[in-house]
Amino acid sequence: MKQINIGIVGLGTVGTGIARLMNDNRDLISARIGADLVLKKGADLDIERDRGMDFAPGQLTTDPFEITDDPGIDIVAEMVGGTGIAKEVILRAIENGKHVVTANKALLAEQGNALFEHAEKKGVNLTFEPSVGGCMPIIKTLRETLVSNRIEAVTGILNGTCNYILTKIANEGIAFSEALKDAQDKGYAEADPILDVGGFDTAHKLAIISAIAYGMRINLDDIYIEGISGITPMDIEFARDCGYVIKLLAISKYDDGAIQARIHPTMVPFSNQLSTVSGSMNAVTVAGDGVGDIVLFGRGAGMLPTATAALSDIGDIARGILAGGGIRVPMLSYQPGHVHDVPIRPIDEVDTHYYFRFTVYDRPGVLSKIAGILGEHDISIKSVHQIERKLDGGVPLFMLTHRAREAHVKQALKEISALEVSTQEPVLIRIEEGGH
Amino acid sequence: MKQINIGIVGLGTVGTGIARLMNDNRDLISARIGADLVLKKGADLDIERDRGMDFAPGQLTTDPFEITDDPGIDIVAEMVGGTGIAKEVILRAIENGKHVVTANKALLAEQGNALFEHAEKKGVNLTFEPSVGGCMPIIKTLRETLVSNRIEAVTGILNGTCNYILTKIANEGIAFSEALKDAQDKGYAEADPILDVGGFDTAHKLAIISAIAYGMRINLDDIYIEGISGITPMDIEFARDCGYVIKLLAISKYDDGAIQARIHPTMVPFSNQLSTVSGSMNAVTVAGDGVGDIVLFGRGAGMLPTATAALSDIGDIARGILAGGGIRVPMLSYQPGHVHDVPIRPIDEVDTHYYFRFTVYDRPGVLSKIAGILGEHDISIKSVHQIERKLDGGVPLFMLTHRAREAHVKQALKEISALEVSTQEPVLIRIEEGGH
Repeated sequence: MKQINIGIVGLGTVGTGIARLMNDNRDLISARIGADLVLKKGADLDIERDRGMDFAPGQLTTDPFEITDDPGIDIVAEMVGGTGIAKEVILRAIENGKHVVTANKALLAEQGNALFEHAEKKGVNLTFEPSVGGCMPIIKTLRETLVSNRIEAVTGILNGTCNYILTKIANEGIAFSEALKDAQDKGYAEADPILDVGGFDTAHKLAIISAIAYGMRINLDDIYIEGISGITPMDIEFARDCGYVIKLLAISKYDDGAIQARIHPTMVPFSNQLSTVSGSMNAVTVAGDGVGDIVLFGRGAGMLPTATAALSDIGDIARGILAGGGIRVPMLSYQPGHVHDVPIRPIDEVDTHYYFRFTVYDRPGVLSKIAGILGEHDISIKSVHQIERKLDGGVPLFMLTHRAREAHVKQALKEISALEVSTQEPVLIRIEEGGH
Repeated sequence: MKQINIGIVGLGTVGTGIARLMNDNRDLISARIGADLVLKKGADLDIERDRGMDFAPGQLTTDPFEITDDPGIDIVAEMVGGTGIAKEVILRAIENGKHVVTANKALLAEQGNALFEHAEKKGVNLTFEPSVGGCMPIIKTLRETLVSNRIEAVTGILNGTCNYILTKIANEGIAFSEALKDAQDKGYAEADPILDVGGFDTAHKLAIISAIAYGMRINLDDIYIEGISGITPMDIEFARDCGYVIKLLAISKYDDGAIQARIHPTMVPFSNQLSTVSGSMNAVTVAGDGVGDIVLFGRGAGMLPTATAALSDIGDIARGILAGGGIRVPMLSYQPGHVHDVPIRPIDEVDTHYYFRFTVYDRPGVLSKIAGILGEHDISIKSVHQIERKLDGGVPLFMLTHRAREAHVKQALKEISALEVSTQEPVLIRIEEGGH
């Protein structure tokens, strides 16, 4: 049986998971692929640590370039992460004619265009199923299943840490800081959580997804990013009473020659499948002109789920090698000549539905004043709710709006915030109506 | 640009959908695949009907063998359905060295083993993504995404008609017959609905899924099949009060050297994603030893969703032709030598949780008598509920059990049914605990 040799650079959680699945399910994998996948070498700074499996003498090295430069290795799995040595590893592996599988969303989102061009030139694959959504086959679904569909939108819960925290706040009515601490204690959140809770990790993923959905060059810089640290139990409770759940959504939509690409806390109606995703799970909805909506749901992180996604890519590449090599599916989903710069619409030009929470003195005439300012800015109110609870001497006033323009909303909120009856900054949460 | 020629046999709903997507999104598809997909010829008994698009003179024929025998056609889409002429079309296309894409679950479930062997021998693909779950990429996920995972279970809602009817009964409290009539009026159910509501269509799909999940030859005969016609609003209401939804589930599980493969109405807990699937939507959960659970959700039928699945296969085959042809992914997921006969466990040997509804005279001692019989058969009761409603002189007595053996349950129910206090046949619904 033909043998295909794999090298793994970075034996952390995911890298170790790949080694373990290759080891535990070796016969199964070769019965399916028709070749033996062999872990020829693994590299890590720490090669002494117990990884729950045996390695042969010399199978591990501390030098990643022993792998990139090994003429016997066919496929390199880059599982180091970050934009430092990982980039060098990928470039050198490509340079040496090896296919590369990576989970490195940050690197792809920031510098992917050049890396893909380089791989294209060398005729090797640079694939990245494990970089987005853990085990969910979102990249394969966009690049292969929906080859015949114009993608209209991709909407997802792509960060398990944020979803865990928001679920915790919703279930227990605790503050963001307390839920974050719990997530840190449980190992779901990093000591420095800003990459997750600030929405940046989600943005890396959305940049990659948008590129392959619409045939555009990767563009991270123009994505609008807003994290979840401002979400309070009061907002979540009010949302629930109105039939919504608050999720950190990654939203990317085709919008008349441009793309909307934005990450922000979002009110999602109960009727939308994404509202049912709780805890650290991930899910993503793809809307295509043929399929309507497809929803994928699964573990967005973790050792074996992410390793499974890496091995999905490794399996595809191995099958390609058996068939004579080359690039079967273009890396960015469109043939190179068809990948263009597609503009991302500035958030100020986006039209959507809104939830506002104002905190105001409980006085006659306040509502009319606020409604007046909104009306002047073309913002039409769908419903108003007031509760008795006091907040710093004010009372909260909740509103849901019909579709409005973000720039108008910002201007109106600025004016309302400046009113002397306002006791706190207004809170704004965007609403995503419809969907499955 | 290279051109790949497609022939469609059967221009009904799905066949027309394929033609339409190929036509409407032709540039998009070629920008992704790197070849022009051309509909060289379509065959149908009725070639005069308006299909909402233009065909060139001579592009349509009433003779399917004009397509199977056309040396210029690379890929044949068999969209006739049934086990008659469809089989001849597939065999002749394969014989002539053409790749075939089919949505024909009945034919594959009943005679697939021989067809796949024939295709294998000729070195062509016989692919079938559109045969199961409409647009959901369940075949691709099993054959490619999960190449490294041992599949532990596949559980799905695979028949939109049944799910529509069950949702209707649940929402409106109407009888099965009335919900069925509504489904027929709306065009969701056929005039002869037995293939759907009897569970047979679902069984065809489960036979295909089980084969590729576990590397087994297709085995339709040993699947246990029970339809939904016995489901009443009372059972649905009781289930809901206990935190369950009743769905027609297709269940296939690896079970110690054998497979469980069964179709029956099933109580699914609210915490399981499948409980949220309403109306005519489909969903399927795949459990693998690496990923935990992946859930796919989408439209299980309809013109463009199913056509999208067909074009997913056509796109894959086209990419294969560009790369030099051959079979990239083994049709039944495992290399031919690794496909075995795996026994399906008889339903009597299955252990699961149960819901019972007994209808009995409201007399002292009845519960103790019934509980006694259950106990004698090793069936341990989890909870008992009684309501006051009268049914034919009796009152309903509801029970949920811990895990029990089906053979024991049947024997116990037979004995209980024979009791003189029983006024109606006992009702049994199996419960699927856990899951996402």
